[in-house]
Amino acid sequence: MIIVLKPGCTKKQIDSIVKQITSLGLKAHVSQGVERTVIGAIGDERGKVELQNLEVVPCVEKMVPILKPYKLASREFKKDLSVIKIKKASFGGGHFGVIAGPCSVESEKQIIEAAEGVKKAGAKMLRGGAFKPRTSPYSFQGLEEEGLKLLAKARKETGLPFVTEVVNTETAELVAEYADMLQIGARNVQNFALLKKVGGLGKPILLKRGMSTTIQEFLMSAEYVLSEGCKDVVLCERGIRTFETATRNTLDISAVPVIRELSHLPIIIDPSHAAGVRQYIPTLSYAAMAAGADGIIIEVHPHPEKAMCDGPQSLDIREFTAVMGRLKKLARFNEQKL
Amino acid sequence: MIIVLKPGCTKKQIDSIVKQITSLGLKAHVSQGVERTVIGAIGDERGKVELQNLEVVPCVEKMVPILKPYKLASREFKKDLSVIKIKKASFGGGHFGVIAGPCSVESEKQIIEAAEGVKKAGAKMLRGGAFKPRTSPYSFQGLEEEGLKLLAKARKETGLPFVTEVVNTETAELVAEYADMLQIGARNVQNFALLKKVGGLGKPILLKRGMSTTIQEFLMSAEYVLSEGCKDVVLCERGIRTFETATRNTLDISAVPVIRELSHLPIIIDPSHAAGVRQYIPTLSYAAMAAGADGIIIEVHPHPEKAMCDGPQSLDIREFTAVMGRLKKLARFNEQKL
Amino acid sequence: MIIVLKPGCTKKQIDSIVKQITSLGLKAHVSQGVERTVIGAIGDERGKVELQNLEVVPCVEKMVPILKPYKLASREFKKDLSVIKIKKASFGGGHFGVIAGPCSVESEKQIIEAAEGVKKAGAKMLRGGAFKPRTSPYSFQGLEEEGLKLLAKARKETGLPFVTEVVNTETAELVAEYADMLQIGARNVQNFALLKKVGGLGKPILLKRGMSTTIQEFLMSAEYVLSEGCKDVVLCERGIRTFETATRNTLDISAVPVIRELSHLPIIIDPSHAAGVRQYIPTLSYAAMAAGADGIIIEVHPHPEKAMCDGPQSLDIREFTAVMGRLKKLARFNEQKL
Amino acid sequence: MIIVLKPGCTKKQIDSIVKQITSLGLKAHVSQGVERTVIGAIGDERGKVELQNLEVVPCVEKMVPILKPYKLASREFKKDLSVIKIKKASFGGGHFGVIAGPCSVESEKQIIEAAEGVKKAGAKMLRGGAFKPRTSPYSFQGLEEEGLKLLAKARKETGLPFVTEVVNTETAELVAEYADMLQIGARNVQNFALLKKVGGLGKPILLKRGMSTTIQEFLMSAEYVLSEGCKDVVLCERGIRTFETATRNTLDISAVPVIRELSHLPIIIDPSHAAGVRQYIPTLSYAAMAAGADGIIIEVHPHPEKAMCDGPQSLDIREFTAVMGRLKKLARFNEQKL
Repeated sequence: MIIVLKPGCTKKQIDSIVKQITSLGLKAHVSQGVERTVIGAIGDERGKVELQNLEVVPCVEKMVPILKPYKLASREFKKDLSVIKIKKASFGGGHFGVIAGPCSVESEKQIIEAAEGVKKAGAKMLRGGAFKPRTSPYSFQGLEEEGLKLLAKARKETGLPFVTEVVNTETAELVAEYADMLQIGARNVQNFALLKKVGGLGKPILLKRGMSTTIQEFLMSAEYVLSEGCKDVVLCERGIRTFETATRNTLDISAVPVIRELSHLPIIIDPSHAAGVRQYIPTLSYAAMAAGADGIIIEVHPHPEKAMCDGPQSLDIREFTAVMGRLKKLARFNEQKL
Repeated sequence: MIIVLKPGCTKKQIDSIVKQITSLGLKAHVSQGVERTVIGAIGDERGKVELQNLEVVPCVEKMVPILKPYKLASREFKKDLSVIKIKKASFGGGHFGVIAGPCSVESEKQIIEAAEGVKKAGAKMLRGGAFKPRTSPYSFQGLEEEGLKLLAKARKETGLPFVTEVVNTETAELVAEYADMLQIGARNVQNFALLKKVGGLGKPILLKRGMSTTIQEFLMSAEYVLSEGCKDVVLCERGIRTFETATRNTLDISAVPVIRELSHLPIIIDPSHAAGVRQYIPTLSYAAMAAGADGIIIEVHPHPEKAMCDGPQSLDIREFTAVMGRLKKLARFNEQKL
Repeated sequence: MIIVLKPGCTKKQIDSIVKQITSLGLKAHVSQGVERTVIGAIGDERGKVELQNLEVVPCVEKMVPILKPYKLASREFKKDLSVIKIKKASFGGGHFGVIAGPCSVESEKQIIEAAEGVKKAGAKMLRGGAFKPRTSPYSFQGLEEEGLKLLAKARKETGLPFVTEVVNTETAELVAEYADMLQIGARNVQNFALLKKVGGLGKPILLKRGMSTTIQEFLMSAEYVLSEGCKDVVLCERGIRTFETATRNTLDISAVPVIRELSHLPIIIDPSHAAGVRQYIPTLSYAAMAAGADGIIIEVHPHPEKAMCDGPQSLDIREFTAVMGRLKKLARFNEQKL
Repeated sequence: MIIVLKPGCTKKQIDSIVKQITSLGLKAHVSQGVERTVIGAIGDERGKVELQNLEVVPCVEKMVPILKPYKLASREFKKDLSVIKIKKASFGGGHFGVIAGPCSVESEKQIIEAAEGVKKAGAKMLRGGAFKPRTSPYSFQGLEEEGLKLLAKARKETGLPFVTEVVNTETAELVAEYADMLQIGARNVQNFALLKKVGGLGKPILLKRGMSTTIQEFLMSAEYVLSEGCKDVVLCERGIRTFETATRNTLDISAVPVIRELSHLPIIIDPSHAAGVRQYIPTLSYAAMAAGADGIIIEVHPHPEKAMCDGPQSLDIREFTAVMGRLKKLARFNEQKL
């Protein structure tokens, strides 16, 4: 931690800060500058609330942390990039994993039709919501356990593993009994109670970035899951909230190279929730691959015009098949396995 | 709902859309403009997913909703402003309710000292965290039930009712056994499972706006709570996330008049989390009152430099007493009861 | 400047950086931490591009500036708060200056009626646009020099000094011949050629914050004006761009205490452009005063429904008079002169 | 324009609005809904300020524009995508134009070395700043006309046409005498006086999106240029300002498909200013091409560590050559000409 002092601090004030730093087992390093005095607190600053409290001291101007606040999620902790495999779906290590399926499970016919369609097009994993977190209490809230059973049936028919969202701690174990991978939705990315719960269930986690979560906070949320013993976390960028309204969210494509540098965890893109408008989804999928993402998760519905949620941002099977065709060509250029 | 069509739609396409609208029990009203045809779908559009799906139809350019998506939270539903009372603390109807106390309960001594201090200065309600949602898994996570017991003890000593945060559905009932009011934190504002849970517990709710929640989404979250039968919801603006980094968040002071116009629910301000820096908190408190807010919730710690969380944004008792002194004068000008 | 190195830097790399720092006339201070080495470059870092270029060195992780990049605008440079006076209008030093008038000058009748109305209500300065920067080339672009003449006429009739916008370097001198104060609009806040030009014209400047300008950048823009010899700069917060759409912009009320701390320049609020909707303007005006602003600039039109620009966000004379009445009461509480 | 009325409007109020609409030469279409009355104003609404003023009428809840406010920039005006050619550099129509060069011209040696390097790597156009708009008045402000002469010299040596920034109306003609294309920088995107000026100079324009400009506003700025007679406008997305600080700006990659849908003008990407950090620039360049952009503009300096501006976000010649090599492969996949 670097502690920048206001101009005109007295020697007594400086000595007092130095004393507090050393009382925490850290070393203090005072640099007298022309306009400012700067004190370095040397040692592991993470979790040291007493250090942070120095900000309260009147002659402190600002505190600059030096170490990143996450450990397990960092590339310093694990130099080699993680590859996460769930049956035939792989994320990372040159594998571009494609997850596809409807926003929510609506009926046996719908989910089976979707699963067969996306499998034929080349998807390696199925998505579908059983517990649905909806902005309005008047919207369809999902089929709940019945939805999980239908997803399991679709898995049996097609061999595709599936990911589905967990919305609270109470139903987490139930979902884990059925699903191959548990999704934490964007609105729950800082629901720490839920992160701790799913981190201990022994299943891979798909962690979506919140719409106003910084990359550093996003990695802190991953840290919660990892610190409960889970090793298989796939990160997912799905658009952030900005002033622009032409798309529902603004896809932060730069998050791919930034996270690649900071973390060993795979990072995939959700073009459907980023765009919120179907016609931009193919383009964003190609951009995701070219940017080096480890996969995509994409909303596909056999009949978007009849979907019970997210119809306007769902591709139909034919459109998805076209996207996959183009991605396969791009993957060859990119030396990735699709 | 207004459906704007692209230029060059055929009569057949228009007829098909009209047919779909009428099949939903709504009336369709076609306006042929110079460059665009516009179709009005007349009737209650809320919750009609099939209507929203018209966005998938190729000749539709955009859909413009006319009705607000919330009902119970709206002023159209309830013209008179709600006044919410918890013992001697009142929010709304000319009452400016002041809630004060530490970020988290740390010890009996600390919480009693805080409660006595804020009571003496004029606060009518105590705040204090027992279950703490922290960005880092390495930070202090709260005393949990022990914290609730200490809060109850402070209430017994001072007579002040208290509000504390509920972080998941599993512990919601436990918290409700102790607390006078349940807080839903900013990070859980769209944790719909939790909103539904607390809406049914029979306790008043303090609902904080998320850092990237629009006012419309915020009122939708209130709608979740209200639709479970709860009538006592106090809304709290606590700063939104913007590009500016001089303050931790940007206090959206305009949310006060906007929410006053749209909703009957009281709206209070949290200057502590908005600023994130103690020296700006007094100013923001006065601005809150002048803007017509129904109260404030403010972090006060007997010894901020020793606080286990949020020390840098906590006032000490002396500073808080000074803020209250000035607010009392301003309240007279404002014809509010403090 | 603090230079944080990546883990694993060699002694040779560190020596090379130290050498570059000392070659710039700065002192280098190396701190060897547990996980990171940190080098302090001690001395005046401002304008030293060679120092910034160290970021290119592969083993540098990040650079943290210690000094603020502006000087003349800072409170360190000038401890006492500046008071800026233009005839009877004063900004700062306990004076709350009120500037009022229409978005644009439309006719002699309109501007005289506006000037007389706002004067009677208590405004000390008139505003009105002659050169109008409009988002659309199809919108009314202002009366140009004819508008300046009408403003001068209104000044003669009422004694009110006036401020009007300068939109380019070519017409800056013409505007300066007529106006008492020159406004730099939000969209030109980083039009550095224009800032330099107006800074040398010997007139007070009203500098509006851009909708995505940080406070630090805002003060840098003020620095441009000050560095050309101008001493009278009034800063104006007019709302920043965020995701919220209930108001046109989000008024950053915290900018008042933040700028008070960082700069000696007066800071006023423009509630009209912040809200973009007339009904919220009174509330934001009261909040501005309570937050300690040095004044407001507010759009008033004798007949908003006939205005050639900004009608929907203009108060009429009666509404403005009501706002002033309430501000006068609040000023007494605030110990300010209105 | 759709005018949504508040509940409870009287017939008299509605009649009065209808009368105002028809007096503007538009047709009024009244739809009586269950909770709201909606009036459609049919006809060309653009530039009709009197229509916008209806927002002032007390019983009006909101106004929803139907037509886009720009014409000449729209695809409705010109269905075929524009292809803009400047010597051997082409943007659009399957051509991916690459512009490369330093932030600013520093010396003859530097700009010739840069021009030769980028040409060899495959760039078709040179960039370099002569007039530099810098955030700080203490930073290097450019070589001005001397810089233009050096750029002309580099053009003579290499045959590469060049683009350079115009920063004010006074020097616009001077720059136009030398340059092949004039750049309007992000900070001047709504400097309407400048847009009008350059639109009449007979040179192609490179228009950069501002950091908080919506796509609609961006196209309105293009409209200013086009409405002065200029036909050759290349749009450039260079990152928008958001809460994320891991990159200097957030590249809005979705702007590519959105602008492709709305406008016939070519859209290119500036990965250098978007990232602000050199290591992410290659990745963003590939994503730009995969997203269907018509080109990129990229900062390349022969010796970034010695650059007088933007060193940390400049590639050196070797790095740029590597990016071009990979783009050439990707172009084959993409069926684009590089």
